[in-house]
Amino acid sequence: MIQNIQEIRISLDSVWVIMGGILVFFMQAGFAMIESGSVRSKNTVNVLMKNYMDACLGGLVFWIVGFGLMFGVNQSGWLGTSHFLPNQLDDWHWNLLFFQMMFAATATTIASGAMAERIRFVAYVVSAAVVNGLIYPVFGSWAWGSLFAGEGWLKAMGFIDFAGSTVVHSIGGWVALAGIIVLGPRIGRFGRHGQVHHLPGHNLPLIALGGFILWLAWFGFNAASTVNANVSIGRIALNTHLAACSAAVAYMLFALLMRKAILIKTTINASLGGLVGITAGCATMSPMFAVLTGLVAGLMVSILPALLEKLRVDDVVDAVTVHGFCGAWGTLAAGLFFESNMFNTEIILVQAMGVFAAFAWGFGVSFIVFKTLHVVLGGLRVSAQHEQRGLDYTEHAELSYPEFQRDITCETDDITKRH
Amino acid sequence: MIQNIQEIRISLDSVWVIMGGILVFFMQAGFAMIESGSVRSKNTVNVLMKNYMDACLGGLVFWIVGFGLMFGVNQSGWLGTSHFLPNQLDDWHWNLLFFQMMFAATATTIASGAMAERIRFVAYVVSAAVVNGLIYPVFGSWAWGSLFAGEGWLKAMGFIDFAGSTVVHSIGGWVALAGIIVLGPRIGRFGRHGQVHHLPGHNLPLIALGGFILWLAWFGFNAASTVNANVSIGRIALNTHLAACSAAVAYMLFALLMRKAILIKTTINASLGGLVGITAGCATMSPMFAVLTGLVAGLMVSILPALLEKLRVDDVVDAVTVHGFCGAWGTLAAGLFFESNMFNTEIILVQAMGVFAAFAWGFGVSFIVFKTLHVVLGGLRVSAQHEQRGLDYTEHAELSYPEFQRDITCETDDITKRH
Amino acid sequence: MIQNIQEIRISLDSVWVIMGGILVFFMQAGFAMIESGSVRSKNTVNVLMKNYMDACLGGLVFWIVGFGLMFGVNQSGWLGTSHFLPNQLDDWHWNLLFFQMMFAATATTIASGAMAERIRFVAYVVSAAVVNGLIYPVFGSWAWGSLFAGEGWLKAMGFIDFAGSTVVHSIGGWVALAGIIVLGPRIGRFGRHGQVHHLPGHNLPLIALGGFILWLAWFGFNAASTVNANVSIGRIALNTHLAACSAAVAYMLFALLMRKAILIKTTINASLGGLVGITAGCATMSPMFAVLTGLVAGLMVSILPALLEKLRVDDVVDAVTVHGFCGAWGTLAAGLFFESNMFNTEIILVQAMGVFAAFAWGFGVSFIVFKTLHVVLGGLRVSAQHEQRGLDYTEHAELSYPEFQRDITCETDDITKRH
Repeated sequence: MIQNIQEIRISLDSVWVIMGGILVFFMQAGFAMIESGSVRSKNTVNVLMKNYMDACLGGLVFWIVGFGLMFGVNQSGWLGTSHFLPNQLDDWHWNLLFFQMMFAATATTIASGAMAERIRFVAYVVSAAVVNGLIYPVFGSWAWGSLFAGEGWLKAMGFIDFAGSTVVHSIGGWVALAGIIVLGPRIGRFGRHGQVHHLPGHNLPLIALGGFILWLAWFGFNAASTVNANVSIGRIALNTHLAACSAAVAYMLFALLMRKAILIKTTINASLGGLVGITAGCATMSPMFAVLTGLVAGLMVSILPALLEKLRVDDVVDAVTVHGFCGAWGTLAAGLFFESNMFNTEIILVQAMGVFAAFAWGFGVSFIVFKTLHVVLGGLRVSAQHEQRGLDYTEHAELSYPEFQRDITCETDDITKRH
Repeated sequence: MIQNIQEIRISLDSVWVIMGGILVFFMQAGFAMIESGSVRSKNTVNVLMKNYMDACLGGLVFWIVGFGLMFGVNQSGWLGTSHFLPNQLDDWHWNLLFFQMMFAATATTIASGAMAERIRFVAYVVSAAVVNGLIYPVFGSWAWGSLFAGEGWLKAMGFIDFAGSTVVHSIGGWVALAGIIVLGPRIGRFGRHGQVHHLPGHNLPLIALGGFILWLAWFGFNAASTVNANVSIGRIALNTHLAACSAAVAYMLFALLMRKAILIKTTINASLGGLVGITAGCATMSPMFAVLTGLVAGLMVSILPALLEKLRVDDVVDAVTVHGFCGAWGTLAAGLFFESNMFNTEIILVQAMGVFAAFAWGFGVSFIVFKTLHVVLGGLRVSAQHEQRGLDYTEHAELSYPEFQRDITCETDDITKRH
Repeated sequence: MIQNIQEIRISLDSVWVIMGGILVFFMQAGFAMIESGSVRSKNTVNVLMKNYMDACLGGLVFWIVGFGLMFGVNQSGWLGTSHFLPNQLDDWHWNLLFFQMMFAATATTIASGAMAERIRFVAYVVSAAVVNGLIYPVFGSWAWGSLFAGEGWLKAMGFIDFAGSTVVHSIGGWVALAGIIVLGPRIGRFGRHGQVHHLPGHNLPLIALGGFILWLAWFGFNAASTVNANVSIGRIALNTHLAACSAAVAYMLFALLMRKAILIKTTINASLGGLVGITAGCATMSPMFAVLTGLVAGLMVSILPALLEKLRVDDVVDAVTVHGFCGAWGTLAAGLFFESNMFNTEIILVQAMGVFAAFAWGFGVSFIVFKTLHVVLGGLRVSAQHEQRGLDYTEHAELSYPEFQRDITCETDDITKRH
């Protein structure tokens, strides 16, 4: 009978972890909708293709090398060294591999939106494979490794990042930052005399849909990170929800106070910032502090993008703020509001070290990768002519809305030839 | 070992309730898609923002006051009086709070579509907070309270509303009715000589997507309302599905018979009417009666909106019929077809009393609220000029599809200034 | 206590099966998005209505006759003969009925996209009812029947089709093939001198969204086909994911190698082909072979549609390739790579027999059905004038995007009359 009980226990945990993984998979759709709605219609197919390929490569590459690097035996604390290309695992570990694979794909796809409208498709695909197979899993091994033997150095120090404010989101955000610095801003984004021009996204309902999908998926992301079905998942889900709510409300109040228009994209980004922020500490703080964590994240999203614009950083979806900075804040908040030991300097220092390590590794390595790709491929960026014409036509020989984009000159013969 | 079993039981229940809550959360996306597709493109951002804010405020306000009012200690039978702003609950109650919070947000957002294209954004937001923090939870305390001590007066009478045909949907529908009466119809909706003009929604695929999402989410809404994982959930899910199917088929046959076009929006609304209708009795009737319940709801959706139009009630998404009237019907049906005691007059009378109480409270209080807001804010409704120009531009300084709406005059400078 | 454990076991299985069924339901939304994005805007409402009605009729018809035919007592091995219109079942069987109902609706809706832009709505609805109530369940009874007594003849031979590569997908694909042969190609699709003209879909983001939704739903389709919650579901989900990934990557490499544009629709179709392919063998092969199964499916999707075009087969969404041929391949692959007995000729022959039986039955009966409908209804196909004008206007008196389709002449009076 004890055997029966154990069998039910692991079955229940499997159901929970797999449902969680399924939800996290759906984040890809959320990012795809937000990013495709945020670009001009001439670049829509391109950004969708990047998202779709992130999911596809993300699966294969993480299975081949990522899982081993991140969760394999980790004697040094710096790297997993076993379980590459796993073909025989015990049943329970397949569940974990599936779940973690979806996290890796999420980290990978964060950068795609930031760099939209000007990166070459093949270059992007290669960079995504590097994020998925090297940058993400190596940092992950520090904070979450190993499943088998040994322990990552950050984990050994007591670093708290329950579901990945830093491991997933900040890493993704810093990769995005490196990418857009190497790429430079889109044509027309900044004037010669410091003017900032908005290049409005072409389809705002898609952005709203993407926001709802991401929020939905986040419940799997955070609550299933217990990798164990138990009664505590309710508070985790609630904290997740409250942080998103308070972040969006904080932005709304900020805009009202500043007598500015309440923009839908910023509202959604604020809620996402709240979600990113609560990800590290959702299991170890009370709802009151979850609200506070979200509130600060919402204010960050209200303020930081304009500052980055002043530095002429052209981030199409504000991924650096939402994922990078809010992830960093959330990781600190997880330490600050750690319920059994609040405002403990030692804990906070460890958290800060993790935040810094993520920046150094994530930004540093990806900067080198993008620079290298730039040299190797003879340019990371499409030509100015292609950028103006739109990447859908020039990179994919397709238009998103062929009946409604008659102003994009299309040599139909040419397209047919390339199909 | 008994302890192990109990621990697994509550873990399994938690998984079920949280998965249900996650699905119910997704209703927000469904409403957002249906409503944004049903308005003209110039009001799309506005309605999306209302939906998004419903979710955000719905989370915070229900946590702060709604939960206590609805489920707190209820000695009088008329109101919960404890558990406001809960920061320490036992683990299981966090699960229930999360689940119920999503129901509250659903009730809140029902009215948003009905009142679209003419209500002021800030006024709407305030009214939504009142629905979420007062109108919904107080009625809820009558029918479903309390989780702790005491019992609502309707519940004490044996009122059957398993998942909320009345508690959630009718309340939402009657709030919508009060709102559109106070607001009045959109400009151009009704001619001087009694003509009815359709103002077609701008994006029908979004409506279809929203319909599918709501249907999906409804399985969580109804089946997880057991708040206990057990083998009975299959019949509940099946009843839910069959009622939606038969309602849509009923409308299709009605349209064929009347030699009218089969409209997609009405098809979807019919299925939603079936879903609303089966919500009260899905756990206590056999599939045959679920089909019948849905069929009647489908016919109601086929007929009632035209009657309301004759009364010059301008309901953009037919929320009054779908949620208000179909909810009332479903609550009666739950009594009529209550399987262990069918067609029992006493049961039916209690159901009717619940239906009436919901109307009196939901319509009455919200009517006062909207009238008050009208006076306090100097007008619930935007100016005629703003209405004609579209609320996206005037209230949010954004366009949904900037590349495809060149006929909407936009002083770009003005927009930039407001961003 | 044993009773407690049994009760928890069946509760957990119920949760898993119902969550699976809910996910499979969502496939309808995925198909609706892919298909509506793949047609020209003038036929969008029409294809959405077909999808919506597939779900609705699919529920009712399968409940009335399909379930009995497929899973009822099956003494002959060729047909179930009990449990029609079930109103009293034991609790567990309601769970299974719900789950299976969603599979039937999926099989039904596969053909809708292939035949888009020219089939009469009422004719389509009748054909869908026949697929749902006869073609699908009868074949299903051979491979998966019965739940009660007796066994289908294919099942008795040891036919492996875990979640329905053949039972669901190939059957759907062959029905589509019969339909488009009887219908003929769309006007303008093929020139007089053998030229092939692409008629591009009007909304590619919808296609991408549909792809993500189908992929999401597939995890329920495959992993919940255990109809038992256990630790093995992780490998099933992983195999499902890897096959989809490798299929899309295979297409991408194929396109790069052939120096062709990487098209988003084909990328998505490739991943769907991988998903169809892995469906039969996802529970009985190792991840390495799942990748291989997907890879072959991806290449099939890269190559076969162009060959079918040469035969002047006009398949709007390439359903014949993705569901028909990839389903056949997947069924063979499930035999070839059956892990406990690989490359066993006997197993492979049984698989081939199942593949052939599905083609003979699915194509044969549906060909007769479509031909009969063609005669009975005085034409399966709309008039050329209606086809050119678009089915939205002529069949449904609605436009998908009324503000953006001003080139479609609309006698508004006429539309109003028909509403």
